[in-house]
Amino acid sequence: MSNPDGSGRVVVIGTVGIDDIETAHASVQGVLGGSATYASLASRCFAPTTMSSVVGHDFPAAHRDLLTERDIDLSGLHTADGLTFRWGGRYAVDMNVRETTFVRLHVLESFDPQVPPHTVAGSFVFLGNTDPSIQLRVLDQVQDPRFVMVDSMDFWIEGDREQVARVFQRCDCVVLNDEEVRLFGGDVNVPRAVRRILELGPQYVVVKRGEFGAALVSDHGWFFAPAYPLDDVVDPTGAGDSFAGAFLGSLAAAGSTHEAVLRRAVVYGSVAASFTVEAFSVDRLAELTRHDIDSRYVEFGDFAAF
Amino acid sequence: MSNPDGSGRVVVIGTVGIDDIETAHASVQGVLGGSATYASLASRCFAPTTMSSVVGHDFPAAHRDLLTERDIDLSGLHTADGLTFRWGGRYAVDMNVRETTFVRLHVLESFDPQVPPHTVAGSFVFLGNTDPSIQLRVLDQVQDPRFVMVDSMDFWIEGDREQVARVFQRCDCVVLNDEEVRLFGGDVNVPRAVRRILELGPQYVVVKRGEFGAALVSDHGWFFAPAYPLDDVVDPTGAGDSFAGAFLGSLAAAGSTHEAVLRRAVVYGSVAASFTVEAFSVDRLAELTRHDIDSRYVEFGDFAAF
Repeated sequence: MSNPDGSGRVVVIGTVGIDDIETAHASVQGVLGGSATYASLASRCFAPTTMSSVVGHDFPAAHRDLLTERDIDLSGLHTADGLTFRWGGRYAVDMNVRETTFVRLHVLESFDPQVPPHTVAGSFVFLGNTDPSIQLRVLDQVQDPRFVMVDSMDFWIEGDREQVARVFQRCDCVVLNDEEVRLFGGDVNVPRAVRRILELGPQYVVVKRGEFGAALVSDHGWFFAPAYPLDDVVDPTGAGDSFAGAFLGSLAAAGSTHEAVLRRAVVYGSVAASFTVEAFSVDRLAELTRHDIDSRYVEFGDFAAF
Repeated sequence: MSNPDGSGRVVVIGTVGIDDIETAHASVQGVLGGSATYASLASRCFAPTTMSSVVGHDFPAAHRDLLTERDIDLSGLHTADGLTFRWGGRYAVDMNVRETTFVRLHVLESFDPQVPPHTVAGSFVFLGNTDPSIQLRVLDQVQDPRFVMVDSMDFWIEGDREQVARVFQRCDCVVLNDEEVRLFGGDVNVPRAVRRILELGPQYVVVKRGEFGAALVSDHGWFFAPAYPLDDVVDPTGAGDSFAGAFLGSLAAAGSTHEAVLRRAVVYGSVAASFTVEAFSVDRLAELTRHDIDSRYVEFGDFAAF
């Protein structure tokens, strides 16, 4: 439901997990991770945020407390019989190169997300990267969403393209990286591949380009935002999900999905992502204030002024 | 010398050659190429342009006529005893991937560029990618240049880093792609690597990022321009050199090197590069009018507005 001023609520459907992360300079074990975690922690800087996900009985109370203390509504976070999803990643000296060292789905194998009743209607929805059949079941639950943004990845696009297309058809915005856009569009030319996605029905495609920023594409044309130039990228994990969370959160706060608001959302997304990668796991993101965000947002205005 | 309105002349030092180019869709043989060719053809859309280079006695009259008809001053184009420089390149389906199929230096082996006397003083100078000792000899010839921009590549950076650094020290602006910046700076982090270059003396670094556009970096901060989104990239050859030519040409036309003028120069560079890649060789670039440029320049304003 919308508030009287038109602002709304964000519902994030995705993973919550425990990560081991290794870079050329340091490593951490057992840290809080998952797409829903990053997206929710970014979104809550802008708007009330509900998370729908599943964890096991081993999910540390400290991790749960961190989310609760940031006012994230965990009424959709189910605790299942089993162990929490675990993921391990290793980054090369060039942080653009990542290797997945292990994936243990555990309770995610029977993930059947429930959208909490008080968020079913009129929300801003982020469908984190997961099995498209799960994403479809979420879409069956929500009513008159204000805006639905969906993420996917090569594994699903290659394995079940038809199902992924069915999800895309029902969303307002598809967010993918360059390679995923090319893969789904079946074309190495990104502008042409983007058009293939837009032809399915979504009004917008957001192309994530890592250290090169992000582009928003629609019938209105192209909008480009750079990535914030950082001297020290500590851990790129979660950059894309915190981008999506801040993007949707800023839409929900504005209570609008006009082109101008979406362009600003891309910048807010880039700002959130730039803070996320400054520390391991959610260490920086969890401490983020609206003031931090607004300061860096202003800098983006100067990056493109000519 | 400056004109009364402060506008100036561009001098381009680089290669003029005959190219064979192959893409996944088509191929051309014996076409006009070389860094000085692309840079001069872009620069002449903005300001009087003189080219300093060398060709052999086999250089086709049609190629020479094309340059002359575009009002490029060829008083610095020496015809040496021998054959013209030839280069062959093959692009993969993904146009970002290029393989050099052959290089025959021919008359370039004894290239000793002379800056024509009427352009020695007060010009805007582009030192195209070549042996840094040749670039130094050019720098010894010019007097009180208004602005000097230099290009280099991995071959020289890896082979004679000290000499390349000596060139950079004497220039106002270094233009390199991402990988070359990282290589010269000895750091995978581009912002840190850029700072290593700025510390040598140049006031500006332009980072060419291919389909992701270009960045201008100085003590004033970062400026980002996207690449123009094109449905059909026919031949990426010469994109970087036409970027540099338009960049310097627009500075010479403005008669200024203020930050705001340099930012606009990056956009003009991106515009010129986007036209260059729309056809093989210089086919599109040679037909480019100031009106074409200005139309696309306006579109860039909308790409980053939020």
